[in-house]
Amino acid sequence: MSRYTFSILARDPGTAARRGRITTPHGTVETPAFMPVGTAATVKAMTPEEVAGLGFEMILGNTYHLTLRPGEEVIRGLGGLHRFMNWPRGILTDSGGYQVLSLADRRAITEDGVMFRSHLDGSLLNMTPERSVDIQAALGSDIAMAFDDCPALPSDRPRLVQAVARTTAWARRCRDRYLHDGRALFGIVQGGDDPELRAQSAAAITAMGFEGHAIGGVSVGESAARSRDVVRMTAPLLPEGQARYLMGMGTPGDLVAMIGLGIDLFDCVLPTRNARNGSLFTSTGRLQIKRAEYKDDPAPVDEACACTTCRSYSRAYLRHLFMAGEILGFRLNTLHNLHQYAAVVRDARAAIEAGAFGSFQERFLARWQDAAPHDAARAGAEDRPPVADPEIG
Amino acid sequence: MSRYTFSILARDPGTAARRGRITTPHGTVETPAFMPVGTAATVKAMTPEEVAGLGFEMILGNTYHLTLRPGEEVIRGLGGLHRFMNWPRGILTDSGGYQVLSLADRRAITEDGVMFRSHLDGSLLNMTPERSVDIQAALGSDIAMAFDDCPALPSDRPRLVQAVARTTAWARRCRDRYLHDGRALFGIVQGGDDPELRAQSAAAITAMGFEGHAIGGVSVGESAARSRDVVRMTAPLLPEGQARYLMGMGTPGDLVAMIGLGIDLFDCVLPTRNARNGSLFTSTGRLQIKRAEYKDDPAPVDEACACTTCRSYSRAYLRHLFMAGEILGFRLNTLHNLHQYAAVVRDARAAIEAGAFGSFQERFLARWQDAAPHDAARAGAEDRPPVADPEIG
Repeated sequence: MSRYTFSILARDPGTAARRGRITTPHGTVETPAFMPVGTAATVKAMTPEEVAGLGFEMILGNTYHLTLRPGEEVIRGLGGLHRFMNWPRGILTDSGGYQVLSLADRRAITEDGVMFRSHLDGSLLNMTPERSVDIQAALGSDIAMAFDDCPALPSDRPRLVQAVARTTAWARRCRDRYLHDGRALFGIVQGGDDPELRAQSAAAITAMGFEGHAIGGVSVGESAARSRDVVRMTAPLLPEGQARYLMGMGTPGDLVAMIGLGIDLFDCVLPTRNARNGSLFTSTGRLQIKRAEYKDDPAPVDEACACTTCRSYSRAYLRHLFMAGEILGFRLNTLHNLHQYAAVVRDARAAIEAGAFGSFQERFLARWQDAAPHDAARAGAEDRPPVADPEIG
Repeated sequence: MSRYTFSILARDPGTAARRGRITTPHGTVETPAFMPVGTAATVKAMTPEEVAGLGFEMILGNTYHLTLRPGEEVIRGLGGLHRFMNWPRGILTDSGGYQVLSLADRRAITEDGVMFRSHLDGSLLNMTPERSVDIQAALGSDIAMAFDDCPALPSDRPRLVQAVARTTAWARRCRDRYLHDGRALFGIVQGGDDPELRAQSAAAITAMGFEGHAIGGVSVGESAARSRDVVRMTAPLLPEGQARYLMGMGTPGDLVAMIGLGIDLFDCVLPTRNARNGSLFTSTGRLQIKRAEYKDDPAPVDEACACTTCRSYSRAYLRHLFMAGEILGFRLNTLHNLHQYAAVVRDARAAIEAGAFGSFQERFLARWQDAAPHDAARAGAEDRPPVADPEIG
């Protein structure tokens, strides 16, 4: 069984982009990589075989959701999360820190940790840094995340200062508690959109000996441009030889921009959640499948796409399935969106290997016309229920 | 392109069971066969590749639902229903007659036909025999069904008499209108649970030169035993050399019993709808996956089952997916239930070929313990919306 390692295979000469490789007890992950979100031990609407078939080597699971249902002891008893969900490749687990933000009306923060009132049955869940990494250990995560305090943006400076202090204290408690046994624990840098606080958080977190680092607190209410500013100021503060994970972002355009800033790992609910809402990513932007113009359109979603959905089904059929609330529609849309994301990081890796990421990025962003508003979808978890039977007029 | 034919390959010496083969413009169908229900141009939760991979050679589509959404002219314009939904094998279309029953509060019957008020938007749909077969022709159905008047059971005798008269008149109008072009049109026998009316209906319908015949008006409120009585009295009245289709039934036990009475074709929503409700068929009966006893059960649904679900996933995982309302749960449950149905008819065909259907039937029915109440699920269509996100306490 391999231990966690990260190595850089190539660097782009014109940007900060890197081509790397993570090894884990469950195989390798070629980076830059995108991780589909599998909040509740399933990438919504997909089988593990389909996710692997699209080329993904690591997915994200969620501590808060899995401890509430079915419970980490159930999963441990059944051989761990990999075996439970029949996914033999890598798993990174979010620590529950994001739910401090996304479930803000259901929790109380103290210096010790966060008391949640379960969104399922109202029961109390006392999530501390120790409890978070214990759960992640029970799940058998390949990359566990430290428990952090993730404020929304905008937040006033005292709140951002408080979050940095808590995140630092909690990171140390996670580091002290976690017996990683060849697995990795990543620290998370907070600091909002304040350069000074980001620098302060990065200095504190990177001094603790984590195996890798994440930039947290982005895509939490700020504009896409502001998110990029935060990454631009933070990424260079993280150790060059370790993996850098940008939590909860973003669109294909965001990914390409952030890879150029030196990010190695991404996760986001956008491809899966948008698929269930009928919003499909193409090589140039997005397509809303419910639009009346597609009613009898025999063309595939994207002529340039090689996915099963585009090879076998028309826009008209996908529109029909969506309007009828059919499960197959959620499946085919999800397959397509995830294929798009897989293609973006695969193309980015090839461009870095060729030493031509700069021109790849320029071409990509020139054709990427994303008319959609900035997505409030940082989300290390798909906290909202699946839109499995939408009411559409 | 093949024309419709039906041939009997073998007869069981001890029962009325037959082993046959249907040819259609879209391939052959080995009988006895079960047709998964694909009401709205999709077998709910499945891809066509999965349905074919399970061994099914024909599915059922629905005239009423497809004319309302997306409309038969949209489907015709996109190359017909096979191409629209990417299903290259056989399609039988229900005529809309079943919706006369299932949507009884949304329609008015006259001698000319049935006026429906759309369950989608309240618009009016005037379904006549002519319109029904015109829609089915536009869809490109391999086996179209005559438009019938299908009363619930119990119904008083005047209502049953009226339904037989209307079904006869409408069958003639369908026969006169339909240009089948190598495709088949089946007549439907009504008559409720009255032997005299069944005989009268069978005599009238079988005199019209249909390519095959269906027994309608079963599983419409009566007990399972009464359903079998109706089939027992009706099947022998249908031409021996033509296919006999029992509409809207039933459990695996029902199928095995009815094959012994000489039925060749079945459809039913039970495997797909029950899957979405967490009711799983096994070789001996049913299993309710939501039960607390399965919370940490590492066993597959059915040790004797070779389906992908049983080979890869535990009861505990399937229970978790069901409790969380996850789409993957609906998929894996549906795959399992359809596999069970495919296995039943495959085993029955082999038993008939071996001249041993009687002992097969005896063994099957001896171990089949179906504790569930009789299912009100005759249903040539999945009229109710999918239970895609159940609220479970």
